[in-house]
Amino acid sequence: MQYKLIAIAGGSGSGKTYWVNKVKSLLDETKLLVIPLDNYYRDQSHLTFEERVKQNYDHPDSFDFGLLLDQLSELKKGKSIEMPRYDFAQHTRKKEAVEIEPKEIIIIEGILTLEYQQIRNLADLKLFIETPDDIKLIRRLKRDTKERGRTMESVLEQYFDTVRPMFMKYILPTKEFADVVIDGTSYNETLTKEILRRLD
Amino acid sequence: MQYKLIAIAGGSGSGKTYWVNKVKSLLDETKLLVIPLDNYYRDQSHLTFEERVKQNYDHPDSFDFGLLLDQLSELKKGKSIEMPRYDFAQHTRKKEAVEIEPKEIIIIEGILTLEYQQIRNLADLKLFIETPDDIKLIRRLKRDTKERGRTMESVLEQYFDTVRPMFMKYILPTKEFADVVIDGTSYNETLTKEILRRLD
Repeated sequence: MQYKLIAIAGGSGSGKTYWVNKVKSLLDETKLLVIPLDNYYRDQSHLTFEERVKQNYDHPDSFDFGLLLDQLSELKKGKSIEMPRYDFAQHTRKKEAVEIEPKEIIIIEGILTLEYQQIRNLADLKLFIETPDDIKLIRRLKRDTKERGRTMESVLEQYFDTVRPMFMKYILPTKEFADVVIDGTSYNETLTKEILRRLD
Repeated sequence: MQYKLIAIAGGSGSGKTYWVNKVKSLLDETKLLVIPLDNYYRDQSHLTFEERVKQNYDHPDSFDFGLLLDQLSELKKGKSIEMPRYDFAQHTRKKEAVEIEPKEIIIIEGILTLEYQQIRNLADLKLFIETPDDIKLIRRLKRDTKERGRTMESVLEQYFDTVRPMFMKYILPTKEFADVVIDGTSYNETLTKEILRRLD
């Protein structure tokens, strides 16, 4: 069996998860494996909790791209992996990894999945979800204040200090590597099916 | 005496008031008259209060450009005007206008000051303040929640329903009429002085 890898990138609030969920609804679940890049955040247990909170989690150095490359390579060879899991409350890698079997279509989704050249080379299809910056900010504000109990002020401060500058410096420039740029403001099912057909 | 008119436009939160205040600090107050476009909102007293609240105050039809044109023409001829005043709480024009004498430099500032061709023709200098949409939204959120006691949700709803689409449809296209596009994210005093010198 051939294992196909889709890498999907885009800023926070661009609609990556929404698009991946639409793909899930189109494919048999035995055929699709979705891996969030966030699982590959580096462990911060060597830092105090106060130091961990201050880290810049939108910078490429925050991710363990070496481990991710190894594991995506294994999956593409049909081998299972021990996928790390991340404790977002503690900013540490959880002790127990989870065993993951490869499936026909593997999606790696996250802000910087197109950042690392060797992962781009491994991908059969590279996608970038593009959404206007103000719309992304609205989505992030609604999500983080409702689901994560944060204040508007803290979301805006983080957005201005790290999310926005890291997007401009690292995420947006990876758009040029994408085979398809997807509009994150209106879902297009015909395009999505066309994208999945390209993998055959 | 020659009276010079500067028209300055830009979206909500772009930094128009900030820039005008910088100009105030550079000029003798006997020389500068600033007229906010907002004073020329049409009176809504023929509507119920509930209807008034629902009006789209970012649409060109909300402003009395005919009256504004007449009054700017009078000021440029050296004549005084009866400038209307607007009651933002009631969405009505206040009963008492205010008598205004012309000054050497007259600034008309507001979102749609470059919308109306005859006002553009009257202006000696046309400026547009440009600021990224997400930064404008952050400024608007902070201002409207702090100074105007509104909730984040209501600001976001209004932004998405009227502010953003009206900016895209009416305000942004007037940028092409500007003699100078000013960066609303970093104030440049040398440029500001250069702009004022152009009026001589």
